[in-house]
Amino acid sequence: MLDAQRMIQDLKDLRTLTANDDGGQRVAWTPIWLKARAWFKEQLAELPVEVQMDPAGNLWATLKGTSEQKLVMGSHLDCVPGGGWLDGCLGVIAGLAVLRRFAATGQRPPVTIQVVDWADEEGARFGRSLLGSAAFAGNHSIEADRGRTDREGVRLEDALRQCGVDIANFPQATAWRKNVAAYLELHIEQGPVLEKLGLPLGVVTGTKGVERHAITFIGQAAHSGATPMPLRKDALAAAAKLALEIRTIAGHHQDAVCTMGSVKTFPGIVTAVVGRCEATLDQRDLDANVLAQMFEQAQTASHRFAAEEGCSVTWSPIWTIEPIPFHPELLDLCEQAVREVSGTGHRLPSGPLHDAAEVARAGVPTVMIFTQSLRGISHNKIEDTLEAHLALGVQALDRLADKTVQWIVAKQ
Amino acid sequence: MLDAQRMIQDLKDLRTLTANDDGGQRVAWTPIWLKARAWFKEQLAELPVEVQMDPAGNLWATLKGTSEQKLVMGSHLDCVPGGGWLDGCLGVIAGLAVLRRFAATGQRPPVTIQVVDWADEEGARFGRSLLGSAAFAGNHSIEADRGRTDREGVRLEDALRQCGVDIANFPQATAWRKNVAAYLELHIEQGPVLEKLGLPLGVVTGTKGVERHAITFIGQAAHSGATPMPLRKDALAAAAKLALEIRTIAGHHQDAVCTMGSVKTFPGIVTAVVGRCEATLDQRDLDANVLAQMFEQAQTASHRFAAEEGCSVTWSPIWTIEPIPFHPELLDLCEQAVREVSGTGHRLPSGPLHDAAEVARAGVPTVMIFTQSLRGISHNKIEDTLEAHLALGVQALDRLADKTVQWIVAKQ
Repeated sequence: MLDAQRMIQDLKDLRTLTANDDGGQRVAWTPIWLKARAWFKEQLAELPVEVQMDPAGNLWATLKGTSEQKLVMGSHLDCVPGGGWLDGCLGVIAGLAVLRRFAATGQRPPVTIQVVDWADEEGARFGRSLLGSAAFAGNHSIEADRGRTDREGVRLEDALRQCGVDIANFPQATAWRKNVAAYLELHIEQGPVLEKLGLPLGVVTGTKGVERHAITFIGQAAHSGATPMPLRKDALAAAAKLALEIRTIAGHHQDAVCTMGSVKTFPGIVTAVVGRCEATLDQRDLDANVLAQMFEQAQTASHRFAAEEGCSVTWSPIWTIEPIPFHPELLDLCEQAVREVSGTGHRLPSGPLHDAAEVARAGVPTVMIFTQSLRGISHNKIEDTLEAHLALGVQALDRLADKTVQWIVAKQ
Repeated sequence: MLDAQRMIQDLKDLRTLTANDDGGQRVAWTPIWLKARAWFKEQLAELPVEVQMDPAGNLWATLKGTSEQKLVMGSHLDCVPGGGWLDGCLGVIAGLAVLRRFAATGQRPPVTIQVVDWADEEGARFGRSLLGSAAFAGNHSIEADRGRTDREGVRLEDALRQCGVDIANFPQATAWRKNVAAYLELHIEQGPVLEKLGLPLGVVTGTKGVERHAITFIGQAAHSGATPMPLRKDALAAAAKLALEIRTIAGHHQDAVCTMGSVKTFPGIVTAVVGRCEATLDQRDLDANVLAQMFEQAQTASHRFAAEEGCSVTWSPIWTIEPIPFHPELLDLCEQAVREVSGTGHRLPSGPLHDAAEVARAGVPTVMIFTQSLRGISHNKIEDTLEAHLALGVQALDRLADKTVQWIVAKQ
């Protein structure tokens, strides 16, 4: 039988082992991350499973089933510096709990059950998130990332080698997709929606697509005292208009978000009109058409505001990803499981990306469950979730795993 | 007779001596500034004048008149790093040209004529502008400025000592106010107003008062993907509203200006809603009541925007100065002089501060003349003024000096 309390104790043990006063320190490719993995392997050592690291550094525990078809559960043990105790860990350790329950029967399950700890979901040290799952999905462009360095100038390639991973072998990680019939991930929401709705769990419909761009308005730097208002070309004014307009743009769509997260002003002194303003824009929606429309509207608005302020404006892409909807049949199974343990089955999209997005993009039927995040806060040591909700989360994952095993068997 | 062409040649000679490819480098209390002053003293050595440095490092050339009452003309030889060839130099070297004209008569003028090169108007190295003229005016708080350091950690006090100035003696500079009956300063406008009006010269009505404040909006940093728009507390949105509102506030008054010159966002990353936004506000007007009203309106607006966005807002003063109107009778004389050489006598306030503001604040009847600045640009190596306008400027100063001498005599 599933032991939800043991899972919660596991999470606390891992926190004790890998956090300090500033929060979790399980940054990928560092000694504390290796310590977290060593602890995870100790837990796996008690089970009749094979433990392997794939060529991209992802750690797999495999419980052989009567079929070679595989059900995979997982998430990531790594976190941002000063992160919380749940972001990523929850999905791995909940997978471990379900794996224990399958193993405890003493019988081979109908399909092979795997738990995976994806390597470097956060990209906290080298700025490349979803590294391991992207390699699994075959999306990883090794040559582009190989030369990345951390703040101390250590190369990604060298840091990986110290952890026993050769970046040249990354393409071989795609071989691990063989026979993977479904992927399930339990994760904290990292946002305030479920708390606001008073729900412990949510069924994740997919990960939103992202349009992420740098926008530069160029006006004319000028003396703040000597330049009359009508003669100014104030780059900040154009950016301020856009900062407000993106809220209107997002407001036309349920669940869409637009964020100006960074504004930099140049010369950026109290006595000068802003001559250049650099801003960032991050737009997200689960509907590709909505996302494209919002992107186009923001561009149009920025040109209008630039013209109004006597400025020019340029856009340059930072990063984009298409929306990734999860598997419709797994969504139904997921809603059943969530409803069974919590009474309701609310569906919501995920704004943050997850390893599940890369897995789904590789063609593997995928679904995620969210647990409520207190105050919607994540990537912070005060990140938290009620223990009762953590228990409901792993129970829902457990039921979803059974349903998915049956679904895989039925499709064979 | 006044030699305007010689003055222009002097300005070019000084540029050759003290500028490099990046512009003027006459930063106060540096070897290049001392070089500029040495060149100035060479010019003075040809004249029947006494040259002295006062206890605050201001350099004075005195042509004794039949009266001990003094007419002072001047400005500053120092500039910002990479500055132009006219900002400050023009007023000193135009004063030299007028001094030459008085000396060339071979007779004592009716009043004593002085030309002053104020020390460290720009505050470029230690962040304290109007240093020498403030000491003259008795406004200099020595204890507060003594410990200032430059980027290399050199203390103001030590840099001054290397130039033969003991900061402990600053208070004695006020003695130099004795018998000063009027102060005249020719300066480039540093703004676009005269160019826009097609006028070579302007009569400066005074220097605007300044309210300069740091404003911090505090909201809640949150994940850009996970946080629905209605649940955000976006500190940037509140600041953006204020950045636009200050234009309306300034727009109610002729000549008033309001500038948000710096915006900083925290955490300031593309994937986070801005949790804290630090902005600066600089408001200026020649009318103290207008200035106070604009300041109050900006504060009220900031609180309204903070409330609308679920944020808090705090203000902290950076620097304030009251408006300093110039002397009404000298304004009339100045308008006559400007009209005689250029055909019109347009009056305008100065947004930038000048040494003249400190002198006027000390109770000395003061007025300034502006020459047109091309493109309104200053503090930049491309700062420029048409040579024809420079010539008109010194001619107007020359006529104004004569009128002011008569005005002083008439008042005796």
